[in-house]
Amino acid sequence: MTAAGVPHSYIPFSLFLLLLSSSSSHLYPGTATAEKQSKTRSLHSEILRDEAVARLNDLGKVSDADGYLERTFMSPASVRAGILIREWMEDAGLRTWVDSMGNLHGRVEGMNTSAQALLIGSHMDTVVDAGIFDGSLGIISAISALKVLKSNSKLGELKRPVEVIAFSDEEGVRFQSTFLGSAAVAGVLPVTALNISDKSGVTVQDVLTGNSIEITEESLLELKYDPASIWGYVELHIEQGPVLEWTGFPLAVVKGIAGQTRLKVTVRGSQGHAGTVPMSMRRDPMAAAAELIVLLESLCKRPREFLLDGGNCDEYSLESLSTSLVCTVGEISTWPSASNVIPGQVTFTVDLRAIDDVGREAVVYELSNKIYKICDRRSVSCIIERKHDANAVICDRELSARLQSAAYTAVHRMTGEIQEEVPVLMSGAGHDAMAISHLTKVGMLFVRCRGGISHSPEEHVLDDDVWVAGLAVLAFLESHM
Amino acid sequence: MTAAGVPHSYIPFSLFLLLLSSSSSHLYPGTATAEKQSKTRSLHSEILRDEAVARLNDLGKVSDADGYLERTFMSPASVRAGILIREWMEDAGLRTWVDSMGNLHGRVEGMNTSAQALLIGSHMDTVVDAGIFDGSLGIISAISALKVLKSNSKLGELKRPVEVIAFSDEEGVRFQSTFLGSAAVAGVLPVTALNISDKSGVTVQDVLTGNSIEITEESLLELKYDPASIWGYVELHIEQGPVLEWTGFPLAVVKGIAGQTRLKVTVRGSQGHAGTVPMSMRRDPMAAAAELIVLLESLCKRPREFLLDGGNCDEYSLESLSTSLVCTVGEISTWPSASNVIPGQVTFTVDLRAIDDVGREAVVYELSNKIYKICDRRSVSCIIERKHDANAVICDRELSARLQSAAYTAVHRMTGEIQEEVPVLMSGAGHDAMAISHLTKVGMLFVRCRGGISHSPEEHVLDDDVWVAGLAVLAFLESHM
Repeated sequence: MTAAGVPHSYIPFSLFLLLLSSSSSHLYPGTATAEKQSKTRSLHSEILRDEAVARLNDLGKVSDADGYLERTFMSPASVRAGILIREWMEDAGLRTWVDSMGNLHGRVEGMNTSAQALLIGSHMDTVVDAGIFDGSLGIISAISALKVLKSNSKLGELKRPVEVIAFSDEEGVRFQSTFLGSAAVAGVLPVTALNISDKSGVTVQDVLTGNSIEITEESLLELKYDPASIWGYVELHIEQGPVLEWTGFPLAVVKGIAGQTRLKVTVRGSQGHAGTVPMSMRRDPMAAAAELIVLLESLCKRPREFLLDGGNCDEYSLESLSTSLVCTVGEISTWPSASNVIPGQVTFTVDLRAIDDVGREAVVYELSNKIYKICDRRSVSCIIERKHDANAVICDRELSARLQSAAYTAVHRMTGEIQEEVPVLMSGAGHDAMAISHLTKVGMLFVRCRGGISHSPEEHVLDDDVWVAGLAVLAFLESHM
Repeated sequence: MTAAGVPHSYIPFSLFLLLLSSSSSHLYPGTATAEKQSKTRSLHSEILRDEAVARLNDLGKVSDADGYLERTFMSPASVRAGILIREWMEDAGLRTWVDSMGNLHGRVEGMNTSAQALLIGSHMDTVVDAGIFDGSLGIISAISALKVLKSNSKLGELKRPVEVIAFSDEEGVRFQSTFLGSAAVAGVLPVTALNISDKSGVTVQDVLTGNSIEITEESLLELKYDPASIWGYVELHIEQGPVLEWTGFPLAVVKGIAGQTRLKVTVRGSQGHAGTVPMSMRRDPMAAAAELIVLLESLCKRPREFLLDGGNCDEYSLESLSTSLVCTVGEISTWPSASNVIPGQVTFTVDLRAIDDVGREAVVYELSNKIYKICDRRSVSCIIERKHDANAVICDRELSARLQSAAYTAVHRMTGEIQEEVPVLMSGAGHDAMAISHLTKVGMLFVRCRGGISHSPEEHVLDDDVWVAGLAVLAFLESHM
């Protein structure tokens, strides 16, 4: 840390590419010796590792789909997941309730009910064909750490109330709108969100009503926490990227979360028979969309080339874009979608993220200009809709310093060795902490996941990394005693 | 015509681009004068135009869908359509029956029952959200022309039997397999076709049985006509392309039907979180698919550039590709299809058509090579499946000469003027004539349709073009007296 308590060891992605072959084995406990077995007991492995892993597996089986994991906002499986998590919260000595956006809360008051509360949270919804750790690990490790305190009769020694929140929607799969849960708690969810429809025309409000939750615009506004009553927010989450695995370290402190823009691009051309319209006469929106997607990839791989005149960016923004900009087309569809018909319309999504907000804005501007030019040249019409924008969030320095210390303590306790400094990463993924940053200061810990793979059934966290994650939350809670 | 009776005025698409602004009004009858009204009666406008147009409209209302036209193989609407067409056949003096693949036949024996029969046909099924002329016009104009002969008591003067066939499946919408009807009559439908399932698991055989048609592998084989009993096959169809409208001529003779290859391309990469995997580390199948689709378009627009070493093509094939090759990506899908997930897999279709089979094969070979190279470079896996192949069909020279003469006569009778030569076009669309070419010599007439639009409710043929189409079939029949 610097004198000001700022973690300074931020490692850009490009540097990590050089570290691919670095060894990590020394950071794990090896074969258990008698001494270590004794220590294992004192490190609460039965709660923080064995039970936590079992709970992750149990929760990972609660799905709306057959054969893969899918839990969307307030779906039947999400409701069943909530019942399970609520049991675990109560088992850890927490008082529980569900709020009118479907968020599940578990709270312990500690020694001073009127002190500012520490919030610890993550989300219980998932993407389609998801892994079992994304979101769930943050909820379960917090509950497990509190259960350890309860088992040691130390819950009453907490200097401030601690509240675990399992947010109802972070992925935004069903309503194409992220943070329905955490944004409501932060007071930044517009009341119009209640009227957003899913693909079948069911609204957010309909879904809540269907689950016996009567929400009105008024009760939505009342969900907002009073900032004066909150000390800060902490979230532990899997990294969802490959960097920690490369460094060989199980935990990292998050310096900030990338800003994000989601676009929906609609290309309209001239529908026709695949056999009868000469190539030179076509206004084919599929070929146009393909050219746009190739352009997008080039621009995001080499932003400097495309922003040659700087695009109103200074050197800092350009450098930041070069190391952090990522762009993805995850959905695409054609109409009428038949192999022997030239489509009349093609629609695709663009997900664009960068740490630097000015840089991201410049990229969106340049991309839009280039899209319109290509569409003009091809005589197709292009509509670019901005579906979502979130500015980057920089984590609180003091909170991050405390989390770094807790992570260091956790790893040190497990290995018994003097540790390297805890890495500091940027998060390319959005997290509930982004929404909660509008309410209070936020800090985050990342946990290593295998191959950096997430949003996939291949997502995996080592049992010992689940354990060290729980130990880090525990160490952080102990700093509030 | 050349000395050998070959139509030689084939006009390549590229030439037609220059004709866009050419006037066509002189080829239509203008405001009816008294003289013309008299002639109109003699040209059987009440049967060949008014009744035929009314029947097209009536048949276009027979749909399985609400609000748009959809008739698939042996669907309830197809059965109702068959009943209607059967009434019209009988009204024209034809003996009718339905065969065990659901094809509807109407036959008149003429003066010599044992002479080789002339078959005239088209299909009664449709695509989804179809126009009312595709297929139906060929059936109705044949019935109308025969009705004119009947009304003049001339059916008995036909030198050979004439059989109109309304084929049960040409579009292949329900079972993804075209020509179920005409291929059975031609004897080229494999018996395994009976076991093809639709999306709900119902097989071709199930559907026939459900309509009280008991089909076995044996009875399917018996459907094949004896080639020695057939003189030839004629099909009249809307052009489904823009060329006739540009030339200002209502009819064209078809020189041949393009061969077709349908591919399914599957690209597999590394699924991941849209925010956390650096651009340089991605194996993104969507970006790869986009590059492949851009390549496909370039190759099909400029095959000469891509087949520089000739790709085993001679100059004839290269020239033919330059004027006739068309390629279409009509369907594309990603998995898991979420805006914030780098897809793990992208699948798309390729529809590729050309008049020259050697050229088409060279293009498929070159395309496949280039696809594999791009996929190798991107470290994604690509699988190219050939889902369908049909060789080009060249129409019979003598039959085409007769049809050209009939078309000339029909237009001349209507306008009373000396006509330009009847255009000769290639068909980019497949037709039942492709299947029947395995049985006997085939010939086709194209009828102009508005804007070249087909497979769309916007599909339209002028009433007077329906009329001239009927006159052409009539003139052709008269050449068999």
